[in-house]
Amino acid sequence: MISDKMKEYVSKSSIIRAMFEEGKKLSSIYGEENVFDFSLGNPNVKPPESIREAVYEILREEPPNLVHGYMNNSGYEDVRAKIAENINKKYNVKLTKNNLVMTCGAAGGLNIILKTLLNPGDEVIVFSPFFGEYENYVKNFDGRLVIIPSDSETFEPDLNELEDKVNSRTKAVIINSPNNPTGVVYSEELIKGMAEVLNRKQQKFNTSIYLISDEPYREIVYDGVEVPYILNYYRNSFVGYSYSKSLSLPGERIGYVVCSSDADDFDNIMQSLNVANRILGFVNAPSLFQRVIAKCVDSKVDVNIYKKNRDLLYNHLVKIGFSCVKPDGAFYLFPKSLIPDDVEFAQRAKKFNLLIVPGSSFKCPGYFRLSYCISYDKIEKSLDSFDKLGV
Amino acid sequence: MISDKMKEYVSKSSIIRAMFEEGKKLSSIYGEENVFDFSLGNPNVKPPESIREAVYEILREEPPNLVHGYMNNSGYEDVRAKIAENINKKYNVKLTKNNLVMTCGAAGGLNIILKTLLNPGDEVIVFSPFFGEYENYVKNFDGRLVIIPSDSETFEPDLNELEDKVNSRTKAVIINSPNNPTGVVYSEELIKGMAEVLNRKQQKFNTSIYLISDEPYREIVYDGVEVPYILNYYRNSFVGYSYSKSLSLPGERIGYVVCSSDADDFDNIMQSLNVANRILGFVNAPSLFQRVIAKCVDSKVDVNIYKKNRDLLYNHLVKIGFSCVKPDGAFYLFPKSLIPDDVEFAQRAKKFNLLIVPGSSFKCPGYFRLSYCISYDKIEKSLDSFDKLGV
Repeated sequence: MISDKMKEYVSKSSIIRAMFEEGKKLSSIYGEENVFDFSLGNPNVKPPESIREAVYEILREEPPNLVHGYMNNSGYEDVRAKIAENINKKYNVKLTKNNLVMTCGAAGGLNIILKTLLNPGDEVIVFSPFFGEYENYVKNFDGRLVIIPSDSETFEPDLNELEDKVNSRTKAVIINSPNNPTGVVYSEELIKGMAEVLNRKQQKFNTSIYLISDEPYREIVYDGVEVPYILNYYRNSFVGYSYSKSLSLPGERIGYVVCSSDADDFDNIMQSLNVANRILGFVNAPSLFQRVIAKCVDSKVDVNIYKKNRDLLYNHLVKIGFSCVKPDGAFYLFPKSLIPDDVEFAQRAKKFNLLIVPGSSFKCPGYFRLSYCISYDKIEKSLDSFDKLGV
Repeated sequence: MISDKMKEYVSKSSIIRAMFEEGKKLSSIYGEENVFDFSLGNPNVKPPESIREAVYEILREEPPNLVHGYMNNSGYEDVRAKIAENINKKYNVKLTKNNLVMTCGAAGGLNIILKTLLNPGDEVIVFSPFFGEYENYVKNFDGRLVIIPSDSETFEPDLNELEDKVNSRTKAVIINSPNNPTGVVYSEELIKGMAEVLNRKQQKFNTSIYLISDEPYREIVYDGVEVPYILNYYRNSFVGYSYSKSLSLPGERIGYVVCSSDADDFDNIMQSLNVANRILGFVNAPSLFQRVIAKCVDSKVDVNIYKKNRDLLYNHLVKIGFSCVKPDGAFYLFPKSLIPDDVEFAQRAKKFNLLIVPGSSFKCPGYFRLSYCISYDKIEKSLDSFDKLGV
């Protein structure tokens, strides 16, 4: 009796659930400490202490009906102004509160952007491997997902392929850097090249092609790598941001969307994002955490913890013969599977109590994803299992 | 360049925005204290002190990566179990955590229910006047809204009309009691009658017709009136609940959906609600406030404050000649407009610094809505203006 669309989703999700249940079964047999779950992107690094202090301060000092009340669907004006100012300082742009809508995480943000842009049949380009939810979000608005495989050596988008695939129905391109699942950070050169292609195509087709940068991992970068801010390179650009990883608050559903003032149809876009927040049922980003963010714009988690994890796991895997791009950001590794069938490989990994995600889940078979946002000790303990899996 | 659907929404919302701007203009001319804004449903009664205490306790005692982390898309199991237990005690039903999905308010809840149920073209019945967002939510999933006018004397749904309008494409009926905008509470007799009609029609068409009860005002009732719990009367039923009003937390976006275990296709429905929470971009209800709710299941705001407001405003309006159903719940009055054109009447009200919402916004022209969730003093001060408007 459920809808036809949901029947499909439910049957797919049962497979994931089955994997999850199997994991739980392993834990009950071998003990949780002997099962190595690299499957989830749930940060293990603690939120900064400033978060808790901000909550205390707000509950002590601000009127409760303001803190927990309705505000404009775009979010509190003072909060948006504070974040805009912070972005301006960091990336040398000129935003005001009117460029921002506070959202229920980046997932909420991407949905209001796509609701704003897509007519049925409009095309949205993504580069595989990619976060599987993009496909669902595009389908929510009857858009058509167009997948371009990344370069298999660097996992950077292939601009020649982009050149080929953009057509008059292309409404948007989604990028995600630092990337889930590869951890790759797109270079300034790449962003410039992408902007060039899109500008040329906009002119050719006399259309607007929006570049949407999904950036929940912006702050999770290593060795001083810089993540270019796309508003500085391309006019028709959106940023979808989330504090899920930078502040370890994934459950709180707090983030924002930025649209460039130079974007075509800017005023209508901002109005539409506001309305979409309401009619899709988000209404507004959670109010207390909007106010918390305003007090913590400069906070971030201790990224060094993730870096140590990366180094330990990456170095070991490469040593024992796995082939893997060294990631500059996020908390994922995306090594090549040792057999072509990555689903089979993930099954094999379970024999050694390793829970990993097949690359097929990211539309990139032959690889697997490891989330290293778990404790260093656990990773150390897991290395033996990788040795066995690697044989 | 924004989508065709959003163009429509944006132009409609500009009208609302213009009204809002006019209100702000009035405040700047006459001073905020002399403008009487009865247009918003933003509670003025403070959240119970237990909310703040619960936040403190959780931040002090629970691990931060649990409190702010991802959990199952349906919400924390312990939170759902606690709420289920509380519902069982109050309404004599037999729910477990498996009947509940925690949601981003009732708006999020209704959207995951409709995503679960609707194929394009499926019909959803509502009774006018009704909360305008229902139309948008149904459109999100390409459903068809079927509007049945309520009895104009009692504002209760007309069951004969329901009998007429249900057909083989009817997938759901949405009710809202205590009602926005009328404040009417549906009687047990009415719910029984409605269940009878729906049962008969299900049999006739060999379909499942789901009754969705949107209940953000369940706790806001006066004079000991009881709100029947629909799971006790009808098998295929959902409840969409929100803590926005019962705990004055509308900005926090916290609520839940309940589905009856006896509902057709129950297992798939619960799976689908879980998946819909994810793919629509809610992901999960905000985590800290899920945990807060578990500690505050028995808290509620001081409803007596609203009751006093109701009595003051209702008695005065009736005294000066307005015709209005006396509401048993929620914090709205829905009097007859003194001229047939309710939009014109709302314009006229502005001359006396009264901000009111025309009944047309609830698909019920010839009436207007007053939200009395503002201070008693303000209502007292506004009575003069109503006298002038009433002449």
